[in-house]
Order: sequence, then C-alpha cells, then structure tokens
Amino acid sequence: MSKEIGITVSKKENFSEWYTQVVIKAELADYAPVKGLIVLRPYGYSIWESLKSSLDAKLKETGHENGFLPILIPESLLSKEASHFAGFNPEVFWVTHSGETEIGDRLALRPTSETLAYSMYSKWIKSWRDLPLKINFWNTALRAEIKSTKPFLRTSEFLWQEGHTVHATKEEAEQEVMTILEIYKKIVEEELAISVITGKKTEKEKFVGAVYTTTMEAIMPDGKALQMGTSHFLGQNFSKPFDVKFLDKDNVENFAWQTSWGVSWRLIGALIMVHGDDKGLVLPPRVAPIQVVVVPIYYSESDKEQVLKKAQEIVQSLSKNKIMAYLDSRDEFTPGYKFHDWEMKGVPLRVEIGPKDMAKSKIVLVRRDNQKKTDLMFDKLVQGIESVLNDIQQSMFEKTKSFLKEKTKSVSDFDIFKSELEKGMFLSSPWCGDQKCEEKIKELTGADIRVIPFDNNSTASKCINCKGPSKENVIFARGY
Amino acid sequence: MSKEIGITVSKKENFSEWYTQVVIKAELADYAPVKGLIVLRPYGYSIWESLKSSLDAKLKETGHENGFLPILIPESLLSKEASHFAGFNPEVFWVTHSGETEIGDRLALRPTSETLAYSMYSKWIKSWRDLPLKINFWNTALRAEIKSTKPFLRTSEFLWQEGHTVHATKEEAEQEVMTILEIYKKIVEEELAISVITGKKTEKEKFVGAVYTTTMEAIMPDGKALQMGTSHFLGQNFSKPFDVKFLDKDNVENFAWQTSWGVSWRLIGALIMVHGDDKGLVLPPRVAPIQVVVVPIYYSESDKEQVLKKAQEIVQSLSKNKIMAYLDSRDEFTPGYKFHDWEMKGVPLRVEIGPKDMAKSKIVLVRRDNQKKTDLMFDKLVQGIESVLNDIQQSMFEKTKSFLKEKTKSVSDFDIFKSELEKGMFLSSPWCGDQKCEEKIKELTGADIRVIPFDNNSTASKCINCKGPSKENVIFARGY
Repeated sequence: MSKEIGITVSKKENFSEWYTQVVIKAELADYAPVKGLIVLRPYGYSIWESLKSSLDAKLKETGHENGFLPILIPESLLSKEASHFAGFNPEVFWVTHSGETEIGDRLALRPTSETLAYSMYSKWIKSWRDLPLKINFWNTALRAEIKSTKPFLRTSEFLWQEGHTVHATKEEAEQEVMTILEIYKKIVEEELAISVITGKKTEKEKFVGAVYTTTMEAIMPDGKALQMGTSHFLGQNFSKPFDVKFLDKDNVENFAWQTSWGVSWRLIGALIMVHGDDKGLVLPPRVAPIQVVVVPIYYSESDKEQVLKKAQEIVQSLSKNKIMAYLDSRDEFTPGYKFHDWEMKGVPLRVEIGPKDMAKSKIVLVRRDNQKKTDLMFDKLVQGIESVLNDIQQSMFEKTKSFLKEKTKSVSDFDIFKSELEKGMFLSSPWCGDQKCEEKIKELTGADIRVIPFDNNSTASKCINCKGPSKENVIFARGY
Repeated sequence: MSKEIGITVSKKENFSEWYTQVVIKAELADYAPVKGLIVLRPYGYSIWESLKSSLDAKLKETGHENGFLPILIPESLLSKEASHFAGFNPEVFWVTHSGETEIGDRLALRPTSETLAYSMYSKWIKSWRDLPLKINFWNTALRAEIKSTKPFLRTSEFLWQEGHTVHATKEEAEQEVMTILEIYKKIVEEELAISVITGKKTEKEKFVGAVYTTTMEAIMPDGKALQMGTSHFLGQNFSKPFDVKFLDKDNVENFAWQTSWGVSWRLIGALIMVHGDDKGLVLPPRVAPIQVVVVPIYYSESDKEQVLKKAQEIVQSLSKNKIMAYLDSRDEFTPGYKFHDWEMKGVPLRVEIGPKDMAKSKIVLVRRDNQKKTDLMFDKLVQGIESVLNDIQQSMFEKTKSFLKEKTKSVSDFDIFKSELEKGMFLSSPWCGDQKCEEKIKELTGADIRVIPFDNNSTASKCINCKGPSKENVIFARGY
C-alpha cells in the first residue's frame, strides 16, 4: 500500500489530522456539500447499525417502545419552556418558506424533541392507566455548529436516539434515569470496549430545562474528556408548561414526572480516537461489521484453486456460527496490500491461509489490536476464533480501564492541578459546590467539571479554588 | 366499549372519515402541531419496523448496503439537473437562517436525495473496481403538501427508504430496476397481503429526471389506485451533470448507469384501507406487532388464579415459538371491552380462555379477518395457532387478488369507460401512446394511466380516445 493510501501521520504527533484521515480513508464518512455536515458510507453506517441494534434490544427488554416525530417544530411550541429555548435558540435552523410561500410561525428543525413530544403526550395521557409511557425515537437532531466541526464529534446534524418517558411518581422517574444510564454504560463498556465514569453534571453543565443531568464521561488519548451520553431527570419542569397531567387512582389530577436521554454517533468518534493506531481504525469485535477477514495466499494457479476452496469453507463455517467473516478474493491486489487495507479498516482478526499452512492443516491468525500471530488447527476453527475474538474484546476494554485509572489523579493543590492538566490528566479535586469557583477554574485553566462521580471515595476537604469547605471530589478535565 | 371509543362510521358509507378514525383510534398515528405532519405512536411505528426489517433483509441479501445522508441540500446542488429541480421546486421547504445568521445559498430539506448522493458518488467512484455501488438510505423526505393531507397517504414529511445504485453497464442497471421492483412486490404481496399490478409509468407520470419509471399499483376499496412503490431507470441523466464516471477495464472513462427506488409509509395507508372493516384495523399476521392476544375470562377469584396461570403458560409457549403473543390481564376492563379494543387494533387472532375451556383442556380461537370461532386443544397449541395464522395471511391475500381481478375490466368503448369508472373500476383500455390522448382522458374523466402492465395479454386495437392504432392495453383509474 502506498503512503498516500494509508494513514500518513502518527496518532501521537498529529492527533487531529490522524483522526480525520482515519474517518476518510477507512471509508467511515465523508464531508457533505454543506459545511459541518457529513455523509456516512456503508462501512461507517454499519457500525451505527450494530450499536443501534444492541441498544434497541436493551431498551425493548426494559419496556420501551419506538415512535416517530416529524423534524419540524413551530417556533411558538419550541419557545414554551423559556430556559430550554434560550439554550437552543442560537443554533436552530429555521425554515421560513415552503416553495414560494412564506411560513407565518417559523419552523425549527428539531434540535431535540422535548417540546414536540410533550405536546403530544399531553393529548395521549389521561389517567394512571396510561403510565408509564416510555417512548424512544431514532432520528437525527440539527444544531448549527459555529465552532470548527469534526466528523462524529461536532456536526450540525447527527444521528442519535432520544428517549422521552412519563411517570406517575418522582421515584419511578428517577429510577428510570438511572436504568437508562446503566444501559448506556453497559453498551459503551461491553460493545465499544471503552471504560467510563458515571455521575451527575453540575448545575452549570446540566441539560437546559432539566432538574439534573446524569452523564457518562470517557477519557480520550489526548487527556480530554468526551461526554458519551446523558440521561436527564426533568421533574415537572416540562409537564407544567406542556400540561402533561394524569388522573391518579384516587381521582386526583397530578402533573407527571418526566425523563429524557440520548446517545449519538459521537460514540463512533470515541471508538476511533480511543482504539485507533498509526495503521488506522481498530474495532472491537462486537461492533465490527467484519470480524474476521480471510486472505488467501498463493503464487501459482494450482495453489490458487485449493487455497481459495479452503478459504471459502472457512468463511462458510464461521458464518454458520454467526461470526461475520469476509473472504478477500480480489485478484488485482497482493496479500500485503490486502493486509494493510483491512488493518486500516480495523478488522479485529485476519486469517491467512497459503499452501504451506494447508499442508499442516492450519491457518495463521493475526490480531489487529496487538499484532500477535498464532497458528490454529483446522479442526479447532470455530471455537479457536470465537475464543480469540472474546479475548480481543476483553483486552481492548481492560486497556481503556487501566488508561483511565492511570490518567485520573487526585489533586488538592491548584499549582499541581494546572501542571497535571497540561499533561492531559483527569483531575479528581475538591470543589465547594459554588458555580463561581467552577467558572473561575474554567477561566484560569480551560477545565470544566465533567462529572460528580456516583462512585466517590473522597472525604471532606477544601475547595481547590476558594479553599472553602468541600464535601467530595469532582472530576475536572478539558473537554471535546 | 362505548360508541365514542370504537369506530363510529361505516367503511362503506364514509370511507374518508372511517380511515381517519382508524388511524387515530387504533393509536397508529396522531396529528402533529404543524399542518400536514403526523407523529407515529408505538403501535403504528412497530408496523413500520416490521416492514423495514423484512425489506432491509431482502436488500442486504441482494448486495445492498445502508448509508446516511444529511437532510440539507444546497439550492445550487438541487438545481443541477434542470427537470428534476423544476419538478420538486414548488414543494421544497427552505432553510434560510441558522440562529440569527442568514444563510447565503439557501438549504433545501431533502425532497429526495439523487443530487446529494450523486455528488458524493462522483468522488467515491474511480474505476470499475468500485462498481456496482448499491446504497440504500432509510430516512424521511419532505415535500410541502398543498392539497388536503391524510395520514400515511399524503403528508409533508414521510418515512421511506431511497436506494441509489451505480452500474458499469446499461443492462446491469436495468436488471437492478427489475430486481428491486420484484422485491417490492414480494414484500407487499407476502407481508402486507395486498395484490399489485406491476409495469411501467407513462412519460407523463414518470419520475422527474428518469429515463423510465416502473411501478406497482394496488386497488383501494373505493376503486381508486394507490402507487405502492417505484423503481427508476435513470440512464445517464444524472451521471452526466453530476460527473459520475469510471475507468473501465480497457482504461476508457465512461459515464455510469444509475437507478433509484423507494417505498414509503404509504404502504401502511394501503394496509389500513384494504384490510380494515367497520370494527377497525385488520392486520395480516406477518406485519402485526401482536399476532395473538390472549384474553382470560373469569368471574371469581378462584377461577382467576388458575385461568391467569394457564393464560401465562400459553403466552410463554407461543413466545418461545416466535409467535408474538400478548396477555391482556387488565383487571379494570371486562372481556367484552377487551375483545372490541383488540379488534379495533386489528390483532389477527384472539385466544379466549375461561374455566369451562380449562375443564375441556381447550381454548377458543377467534379470527379477526372473518370472525370465525374454533376450539383448539391444549396439546395442539403451537402448531394449531401457527396454522391458523398462516391461513389468515393467505386468505387475506387471496381476497385482495380476487377483488383486483373483479374490479379490473377490459373496455374499448369510451361511454362504457366513463360509466365503469364511476363504479370505481380499474379499466384496461387501448391507448395510442400519445400524451395528448392521456391528458384529454384525464381532463374528461379524472382517470390517469396508472400503469402499462408487464403482464399484458391484450392485442392490437384502437385508442379509446382518438381511435388511432394502439399496440396494447394500459390501466386507467383515478388515483390517490
């Protein structure tokens, strides 16, 4: 493979350029004609399909159903909850004309669907019998990005799911917020093999309109934090303006309790950044569109026939056992070219088979994650490959878990805080709870409070900024 | 069930009002705040999910992959193929602002994605090695409807899929057009149980920008035709303005040959109209979100316990055998209320079980399509129900096949044509091929040429309008 076809910069030296090259050259996505928008090519979209199908199954198991909402929201409806509207207003795309006709009440392209969904819910919900109502929507949201855009991480339209639920009690709604966050964590850790920290957002960082926001945050190789998904407790903040009420069993009318939550294709951005290397993408087996690529090796026509036949058999038995295997039988490329091509595309496991292997009734396995080569006997094919794939999945996850641990440091001195932040660390530091300190630290260092972790072993101390009393440590980092 | 909860008009007497009531009361969809837009409730969306998953599987089996395109298309790009733009322009929604900023080159909300997809394809396709390229997109399209709107049939945003393929030869592209039309026909006939006529559209009725359009048309109960899906041969009409070229094996650069095709949630509209009755929706088992509803019947607490236990067992064994069964154990409603409720929602088969049935080790089955009641012994449960479901699917299809046959009449006299059209017939009549005759007939009767059938047994005759020579009969009808 020539230099230009492969990735031409190293991940360490030019992370940003490396990222863009992987996105484009692994054929995940491409830039659309409108700035800030991207197109997903089939290889990239199939990663989304895989994530979607895992998450969808988990949501259905827990009693959620899917629905469809149109993309257009009248301005009058979007502005009904004031803080929510103020938060989204600067990034809304406005439709003002249909054909030649000017539209009276301008139409927003959905930046998120709380307002539209709840105007419907208020019609559908009459009594306790209609609750809980738990609907999820797979769609896109549009938010005009002013800052520099980046495929999957910051685009003006993005694929996501948004869930919107309604409950009779506060307790049940708060339980739902946590159920969803746990499902998200499971998907990210078990499918994407990325370790995350879960907890609450501060008042400053919460979703506009929510009572509170829970989040999961991951660390990227450059030490910056990436928000991987959020689950919001809305309390009655929307049910009151949108009149989402129900008659309870005692015949008393109450406002309902609500939640909303979402994850987006940003998860694919995380996947690229966290696992990729100088050769390109590295995919965990559970989200890889192709888990095993079989590359036949031959130099004569007589070898070709028998090698190809065996290679086909291998792909067939793997496919029969639900392992996604692909035979690269392209005649116009050398095995070496193919190796590099599939490495760039991040296929977790390569099978090589040539005449010498055939003579020994074996194949050669090459792992994408650590480049290790092993032999596998024909008669152990399926179980052998299943076991290697499981091992790849597990060790990719463990690697991110260790990385997160190594890069998270407890710091209570502000000078050390600043120097460690420059090294790309997550800083677990005491904070008094005052938004002024949060803003001051941001101003001085560029670090946000990413998350107030649920899992918090810290003891009472002094705020890293004002030295006032602090109950617990929170995680500071610069963010994407 | 009170009159107001059930459907209050008969399908025969007020077809339009009946349709709307079924959509709303069976909880398929509801009106969104913007005129012409609808929201899909979970019950309606799950029918779409079922259709989508059948079609998606068939597309993947035939080598198609999915991708994602953004919803915004710059006006300069949309207008690149002139006739295409002229066709869609009057119904385009235009985005003119993002936040407070005015956008220079206005952005269209996708009315269809040929222009955007092909501007990308021209970057991706370099040589014969990149062909065929066969990508499908599951998304929505937006076309501002000026005429009166109707859920699923005529809405300003609709769920659909749009496929866009590129081929090295004309023959291969034309073959693709037919492959897709056959897949569509299979889905509609085998899943939705609706008989269709396939063939070509006339020049007047073809897709703007296509060389020709193939279509499948179904007859609705009022005798009007509904276009159920189209598959277009684009020739090189788009590859030339969009520069979709490839280097062939002889190192010669050629413009590629293209197709595009789509079906939408209009299919759900057809499903409602064709199969529904005065009690509401009637769903064919293969697209029903719930195939079997089990209604326990008891009048005492002691009966309740044992009946519910058996009912649960039944649902479990059906579910284990991939039959979608649901136990209606709501205590606050009578069995009679539940019967009507599930009939309105079109569940194909009802299972009733009470103490008397238990004593005889049997259940009672009630078919939704023909109301027939039969007993089934416990020990025949799964095979018995599977067989009834298959029979329902088959007989619903046969019914539409006979109806289409009965309502299609060969007519060569224009006076008979007019009187038969008033009776709500499909008319198979000779046409000379001149667009002026087609327009004249439309003007005089309101009938379009719906389709020039592939399966045409007619012989040479005289045009029904001008009496000039005609090669074959075409199907005239009024349309939705």
